[in-house]
Amino acid sequence: MSALGNLPAPEDVDIVIPTIRNLDFLEQWRPFFERHKLIIVQDGDPSRVVKIPEGFNYELYNRNDIERILGKRAECISFKDSACRCFGFLVSKAKYVYTIDDDCFVAEDPQGNKINALDQHLRNISTPSTPFFFNTLYDPFAQGSDFVRGYPFSLREGVETVVSHGLWLNIPDYDAPTQLVKPAERNTRYVNAVMTVPKGSLFPMCGMNLTFNREVIGPAMYFGLMGHGQPLGRYDDMWAGWCTKVICDHLSLGVKTGLPYIWHSKASDPFTNLKKEYKGIFWQEEIIPFFQSVTLSDDCQTVCDCYLELAQKVRDELSDLDPYFTKLADAMGTWIEAWKELNPEAQGRYPQK
Amino acid sequence: MSALGNLPAPEDVDIVIPTIRNLDFLEQWRPFFERHKLIIVQDGDPSRVVKIPEGFNYELYNRNDIERILGKRAECISFKDSACRCFGFLVSKAKYVYTIDDDCFVAEDPQGNKINALDQHLRNISTPSTPFFFNTLYDPFAQGSDFVRGYPFSLREGVETVVSHGLWLNIPDYDAPTQLVKPAERNTRYVNAVMTVPKGSLFPMCGMNLTFNREVIGPAMYFGLMGHGQPLGRYDDMWAGWCTKVICDHLSLGVKTGLPYIWHSKASDPFTNLKKEYKGIFWQEEIIPFFQSVTLSDDCQTVCDCYLELAQKVRDELSDLDPYFTKLADAMGTWIEAWKELNPEAQGRYPQK
Repeated sequence: MSALGNLPAPEDVDIVIPTIRNLDFLEQWRPFFERHKLIIVQDGDPSRVVKIPEGFNYELYNRNDIERILGKRAECISFKDSACRCFGFLVSKAKYVYTIDDDCFVAEDPQGNKINALDQHLRNISTPSTPFFFNTLYDPFAQGSDFVRGYPFSLREGVETVVSHGLWLNIPDYDAPTQLVKPAERNTRYVNAVMTVPKGSLFPMCGMNLTFNREVIGPAMYFGLMGHGQPLGRYDDMWAGWCTKVICDHLSLGVKTGLPYIWHSKASDPFTNLKKEYKGIFWQEEIIPFFQSVTLSDDCQTVCDCYLELAQKVRDELSDLDPYFTKLADAMGTWIEAWKELNPEAQGRYPQK
Repeated sequence: MSALGNLPAPEDVDIVIPTIRNLDFLEQWRPFFERHKLIIVQDGDPSRVVKIPEGFNYELYNRNDIERILGKRAECISFKDSACRCFGFLVSKAKYVYTIDDDCFVAEDPQGNKINALDQHLRNISTPSTPFFFNTLYDPFAQGSDFVRGYPFSLREGVETVVSHGLWLNIPDYDAPTQLVKPAERNTRYVNAVMTVPKGSLFPMCGMNLTFNREVIGPAMYFGLMGHGQPLGRYDDMWAGWCTKVICDHLSLGVKTGLPYIWHSKASDPFTNLKKEYKGIFWQEEIIPFFQSVTLSDDCQTVCDCYLELAQKVRDELSDLDPYFTKLADAMGTWIEAWKELNPEAQGRYPQK
């Protein structure tokens, strides 16, 4: 379709990294990350020193910082789980956030070129999404592509893209049962495409390699209550993805998935994962139909509005499944309080269309 | 996911080709097509001799044959338009049909291997579709792929795939306005993926490189009234695609798109195309919302039932747009009469799930 839009300036994009280790992985990313601010959320023991390679511009927050900044509201931020990353979304002031895990390295395309993942994400998010009709040649805004015959002209303007979900070569993002059954499977398939997730379709959003427009959809990017003291883990990004997609569909905002790939180096332990996931595996059989059928009222005109209504519906419709969902609904409300306090200017504006 | 299913035997797959010229293009396809029956639908002047390379097993039908076989019902088969191909679907006795245009040649993958398009289509159609939830690593039934973390286990069985929609390298399938604006654009992007078109999403189905399960979805593969004596052209496959997708969604049947690619050699004339398309370009702005919102009643348990109900709704809801749609609704009914007469055993059975 049209030429690519202007890409954001470096100061418009923060990189959020949750970690419990030294950040040597950043060396590989230096050429792509050095112009951006890193927001590092240190999980676990706050007295541990996290080593960060020299020359990066960063802010580091540990649990003590989270409690100092949020006070009692810190209870909505997970501990001993990478879900803590959403604290970084809260304290960023940038328009866009790229979040990446510390076991993700620079991948290569089939021609052997190192992939600048962040650059591809920003290209994805700077061009429209097309959630209302499927384009068989994938992203019509990618170079050399367009809308195919039969694509309605009235839908070609598309809608604002607020999420760009990237993928992983090497270790695929499998659940524990699949990891156990296929320990040796590696993703070697480089799919040269970006596409819009259609309206009405939910997708499993992975937090490993993800960019979003913080000013617009930030309030929906809450990673839930996971880890220490909670019955659940490894559903933090899924939760955020379900909430985000339902809200995007309501507000006519777009979600893309596909390129860029990162190189995921290390499979986490499937036995540990199974312990974290097992409640999620059966709960999702009820949670997903809930999200597939939930509707938001016309009154919900900002992402904050949508999120609070969704929290109420979680409380009303999922608490029977487990008392955990009452706690989670409370935490969703607390998250929005914290968001509004720290981001009075960015409450998820109604799209301009 | 699981290993690939067994592929159909050669006698289970007919190849339907509409044409007005000699079929020299078949030479390139010989290794892939020679074990299958070709059903050639000769458009235009029936006295013209269409030359077919030696050694193929084929049936050739011209307009005289169509009128002899269908009698008065032949009026539902378009003349002077490739929409006549659907006559081939009617007279085939095979379980599957592959239909291809005579300006489509064998493409190569990025490693320079010649692509056996039919083989890939049969792989697509022999493994399930997953229309109810989006899998970010594309077709979970492809070799080396699976469902990602967060994909509900209850949905992993998938549903029966009845359509496999392949793509085109070189000349993309653009409408006339896009052809006019981008005469030099060529599709060079080989996307190594197959995916399910999600439930609730319509897609622009192109008839150039298409496989379907004739026994199940055949009655919906009517290519409408186009060409001679009609106000419209180049919407034949689009019409079939809209009807097919709505019926697949109603009956929980699956549609895949992506691989395989063919090499599309020749852009048709954009000025001629504009003349054929221009009514479709504005009509589709009303037709697509109709198909996006139409619902079929629970009584519709076969594809024939669904198609007749859809014909009635076309008559009721689109005739105001143009009297053409009354004629088209009549023709849809005639098509089903012809289908039932020629295919008493294949009326689009209700899926076994």
